[in-house]
Amino acid sequence: MIEPKVLKGFRDSLPQAELQRKAMIRKLEDVFASYALVPIDTPILEYTEVLLGKGGGETDKQIFRFKDNGDREVAMRFDLTVPLARFISTNREALAFPFKRYHIGKAYRGENTQRGRFREFYQCDFDILGVDTAYSDYQVLSIMASALEAIASSSFVISFSHRGVFNAYLSSLGLADRSVQILRSVDKLGKIGEQGVIEALKADGLNEDQCKAILDFISIRDKDIAKAIDRLETLAGPVEGIMRLREVLSLLQGSGIQDRYCLDASITRGLDYYTGMVFETLLDDTPEIGSVCSGGRYNNLASLYSKQEVPGVGASVGLDRLLSASEGSTYPSCDLLFMTDNEQARAQADPLARQLRQAGLKVDMYLADKKAKDIYSYVDKNHIGFGVTSWGEGRLTLKDFSTRMTYEDLSVQEAVKLVKECR
Amino acid sequence: MIEPKVLKGFRDSLPQAELQRKAMIRKLEDVFASYALVPIDTPILEYTEVLLGKGGGETDKQIFRFKDNGDREVAMRFDLTVPLARFISTNREALAFPFKRYHIGKAYRGENTQRGRFREFYQCDFDILGVDTAYSDYQVLSIMASALEAIASSSFVISFSHRGVFNAYLSSLGLADRSVQILRSVDKLGKIGEQGVIEALKADGLNEDQCKAILDFISIRDKDIAKAIDRLETLAGPVEGIMRLREVLSLLQGSGIQDRYCLDASITRGLDYYTGMVFETLLDDTPEIGSVCSGGRYNNLASLYSKQEVPGVGASVGLDRLLSASEGSTYPSCDLLFMTDNEQARAQADPLARQLRQAGLKVDMYLADKKAKDIYSYVDKNHIGFGVTSWGEGRLTLKDFSTRMTYEDLSVQEAVKLVKECR
Repeated sequence: MIEPKVLKGFRDSLPQAELQRKAMIRKLEDVFASYALVPIDTPILEYTEVLLGKGGGETDKQIFRFKDNGDREVAMRFDLTVPLARFISTNREALAFPFKRYHIGKAYRGENTQRGRFREFYQCDFDILGVDTAYSDYQVLSIMASALEAIASSSFVISFSHRGVFNAYLSSLGLADRSVQILRSVDKLGKIGEQGVIEALKADGLNEDQCKAILDFISIRDKDIAKAIDRLETLAGPVEGIMRLREVLSLLQGSGIQDRYCLDASITRGLDYYTGMVFETLLDDTPEIGSVCSGGRYNNLASLYSKQEVPGVGASVGLDRLLSASEGSTYPSCDLLFMTDNEQARAQADPLARQLRQAGLKVDMYLADKKAKDIYSYVDKNHIGFGVTSWGEGRLTLKDFSTRMTYEDLSVQEAVKLVKECR
Repeated sequence: MIEPKVLKGFRDSLPQAELQRKAMIRKLEDVFASYALVPIDTPILEYTEVLLGKGGGETDKQIFRFKDNGDREVAMRFDLTVPLARFISTNREALAFPFKRYHIGKAYRGENTQRGRFREFYQCDFDILGVDTAYSDYQVLSIMASALEAIASSSFVISFSHRGVFNAYLSSLGLADRSVQILRSVDKLGKIGEQGVIEALKADGLNEDQCKAILDFISIRDKDIAKAIDRLETLAGPVEGIMRLREVLSLLQGSGIQDRYCLDASITRGLDYYTGMVFETLLDDTPEIGSVCSGGRYNNLASLYSKQEVPGVGASVGLDRLLSASEGSTYPSCDLLFMTDNEQARAQADPLARQLRQAGLKVDMYLADKKAKDIYSYVDKNHIGFGVTSWGEGRLTLKDFSTRMTYEDLSVQEAVKLVKECR
């Protein structure tokens, strides 16, 4: 006998969790499709060199990598961004540019699992590749809002800033060469607070005035975005990014969705990667879970594989965080269950069950010859709303398990109407 | 620079393929849900011992296996059946029995890739666990029919037989101890023909009479299922499986779907695994691609992990085969494209695009400042049906790219109606 154990950091997805995930993914896919984003997929296994670059040996102990039976160095993908870069380099000719894609799939990291992180997790990314325009920045912001309206458990605010403006400001302070460190320190503002950031900046070797100047900048946070852009301009000067922010604001205002957004200059998204606008999203009810949709503009995605520069802008939806934020919701396995405890009853009920399915209901038939107690335990575990307690030629009696009301002698049409109204 | 190459036996899924796969999976999930099957998922990576059993070293060179960073022997799942057995052993208490689940996901085998097989492929399985009844056998047959009605590119026939009846017949011929070999030889009938099977059986050591007796049995193939069962009974005697076949036939007749099915005694499904009914499905238009939905009854799924016997019946949908059978279909990335070649035009068109999305259309905006030639190349690659060629306050002009007809000065409602009618 072998112990049926699961690897540390991995987990099964039970029906309730999987129903919830699938419902959320379907809503996201519908939003993405409404904006004409197309889906792609890439292999979970790739050449290690393709995923990590040639030097990627020492720093990447968290990656699942091995030699396959053909003695190739292979690794499991650890995100969907590197595979995207490889994908557009491999398939450039076949793709239609500007290329707008989404990609929902699993990725793998051998991370320390203590902080509720898992070694197998979902990524959900969408990106617009091939243009560097205000409209494409705006479109990503607007897809973010549509996506979260479809799936978030509460209202939300999308905050954005512009890395180019911040970098210009750092240059004016004579700190251009320390921007990577500074961005990382500033990125921790939410966790360590202003005082913490000041200490981190001092540890990076900044003096009092420089720290204060950076604090001035990252304190700019306003839902009156025009005002916030003016303040950024006062500090950083009339740089290109200021113009871009104003164009994006104008598009947001034109579509009437500007209330969803906030300019927050403390948002930097730690990664070197970003060159233009950067985005984050907090849920109003559970800000403590962190950003549930983040991204930004980058202008050199495929540099590892190709000399041709590919500008892009995109965001990543935090599926696992959003799922955890709506914990406690239940997902019925079906609309109604025929309470059958013997084979003869099933044979008699089957034509009615088929009719109800054809009318669009999800219909279950209890399949074991067991007692009422067992059937009710099945109902509870599956969060089923209605039971069919008796039936005859084209007629049935429904029991609403939540109200304990009974509806006798319904036609198929009446039953369908009743159940659909309660969905 | 690193070459953006993909591992042998692996492949990217480009937008057209992925749109097709997602459309097919969504239809399948709707069918499964209508029968109250619930989705589950399991990790792609498991302990090697859990997937292969303790002895599984030599024979399993096709498996992707390695030592992880924690020195654990791990392997990538090579099907969804072994993970299901492990899953129900791990989660028995949390699950509602009879447990009806479906599972769609990737699996991995380092197979020789010459025969159009891939090392990363989709599996789509559904099973009913916890009962051994005629109704559950019938329900799987009926889900198979509903699933294929939803996704198959042509009409189809589901053929079935019963392993228990065949085994009883082999016993009566004194061949019980050679059943595994014989079943495997018979399973090749479609490929090697009757004469080939006879030669294979002779090679297994059977004499002329025994070969003829087996040929008599496996030649039974009839859409008049009652007649075929009678002939099976004449050969094998009134064994338990005969009774089960009659009960299932009666259920198929009761639901009026018996024309979908055929009794074909040559179907054995090579694996030792099956104990009762076995199923296969051929498409009428492309029988040469092989069975597109196969399965059967097994009565000891979780024996590797648990002493408790779990009877089950299920089938596997051949997604990749069904996708290849409907090759040539095209999947538009959207319903219509605003033919915009500058940022000002995009800003002006955006409110209309939003209205059309809210009305349920998939709406694209061309995002680059390029020439008409480039826009038409984008239209072609994305198989887009309609273009918006001009627009003003709440009005738009549509061009139907397939007929080259132009529809001028439409309201949003008129445009939505026109496009939805052409979908």
